[in-house]
Amino acid sequence: MSTLDPSGYEAALLEVIGPWLSASHRCPVIGCGMVGSKQGWVEVPYLAAPCSPLGRPVDAPVSDPRIRVLVCPGIKQEAPPDVMRGEETQIAGLLALQPDFEGVVCLPGTHSKWVRVSAAVIQSFQTFLTGELFALLARESVLRHSVDVDGWDEDAFLKASAVGLAAPEAISAKLFSIRAESLLHQVSGASARSRLSGYLIAWELAATRPLWTDGEVAIIGATDLAEVYASGLRAAGASATVHPGETLTLAGLRGAYDRLELP
Amino acid sequence: MSTLDPSGYEAALLEVIGPWLSASHRCPVIGCGMVGSKQGWVEVPYLAAPCSPLGRPVDAPVSDPRIRVLVCPGIKQEAPPDVMRGEETQIAGLLALQPDFEGVVCLPGTHSKWVRVSAAVIQSFQTFLTGELFALLARESVLRHSVDVDGWDEDAFLKASAVGLAAPEAISAKLFSIRAESLLHQVSGASARSRLSGYLIAWELAATRPLWTDGEVAIIGATDLAEVYASGLRAAGASATVHPGETLTLAGLRGAYDRLELP
Repeated sequence: MSTLDPSGYEAALLEVIGPWLSASHRCPVIGCGMVGSKQGWVEVPYLAAPCSPLGRPVDAPVSDPRIRVLVCPGIKQEAPPDVMRGEETQIAGLLALQPDFEGVVCLPGTHSKWVRVSAAVIQSFQTFLTGELFALLARESVLRHSVDVDGWDEDAFLKASAVGLAAPEAISAKLFSIRAESLLHQVSGASARSRLSGYLIAWELAATRPLWTDGEVAIIGATDLAEVYASGLRAAGASATVHPGETLTLAGLRGAYDRLELP
Repeated sequence: MSTLDPSGYEAALLEVIGPWLSASHRCPVIGCGMVGSKQGWVEVPYLAAPCSPLGRPVDAPVSDPRIRVLVCPGIKQEAPPDVMRGEETQIAGLLALQPDFEGVVCLPGTHSKWVRVSAAVIQSFQTFLTGELFALLARESVLRHSVDVDGWDEDAFLKASAVGLAAPEAISAKLFSIRAESLLHQVSGASARSRLSGYLIAWELAATRPLWTDGEVAIIGATDLAEVYASGLRAAGASATVHPGETLTLAGLRGAYDRLELP
């Protein structure tokens, strides 16, 4: 999306799906996420929470007669102000596979979301910059000299996450210590990276504690990151199940497709 | 420093002070700060806190016979691990002007420091990435679309700072709301910038609360930023005095000069 302007989406899509299209059938294509934002293919107005995760998709302008493109709406929340685009479709997918799901959904990522779902309705949600903060601190800040770009030390993560959750008001004092400790002592870059992750995820878990403190959390996301969140939550006494993000996205888009009134 | 290698410092210094030098006198030049780091002109070993802020300066290699360059040591702390280079000289300057100073010094900046000073000794200190975090979030993160590069809204700052201090465990949930609010409502970029500053400074003040909660804080720094910290501290019930950073740096360097045994 960061490299396309609105007129470039159709060509980019056709490059991917062109070989499967036929001149005798107009193929519906369902999209969700930032493709429906102001900078996307077509701006789709937000639904307002509380609401069902699945809204009516909006047609995007296309010129190729072999496709019809429809984009699902995101969801906004007035107070506290928040927005999502794409995660609602994954939650629709979760509800398609587990229609009776009630509880809390965590969608870790660049902008992590925590969503309360009840009676098949998104009741409220909250977004955290955790993933973006991690990337900026690990790659752009003074911590970059101490933090490796990959590698993992589960013990270092769990220790940092526990320390952070026990005293969230003191997490800000821990970040520079990652740098200072590697100046004064031998600390592996993987361990420093895992500590940074532990402190930042603890910062998110501290704010969401009322949501997970006595219940099951459904984590939706890419396997590695979802497992890190699950590990932090379980160590804090919560129970967590991981659901693969791609499966749920496809189930959600399928649900939107099934509700279309097609000619 | 980011554009010099160790061999480039002498030429850079001579470009600035050359016109004042005389061939008949070897002029002592006293430095402090990152010029004494591993990537600086000469690596000066850290003193270990607790210690006097003023250590013995170390000669840097020079080839011009008109100058002698000496660099003051920084200070390290083993537990919790921390380091400073330069701030100790400002604290030496504060003690030169107020020899009886006892209390807490706050040095806001890219890497803010909080320092406990007693009996003319740096007892302990703690560093925060607050300034760097602010710059990264304001310029590189998704918040850059909502946050102006300058402008100030004191009410927005004080409100955010109070909200953050009242519930520091929830500050992580506030950052994205700056972006979401500007997507859903009209929010000025100056107001968004001041809110971001308020949340991040509150995060620092939450961790340092035991240091400022019943005492006077001496803030050393560039006037604008120092006044922002003073404002946040006063609103939280602390008392704070602002000391100009440059004056104290010069007083500290002067103290180091006065103790030199020069030929």
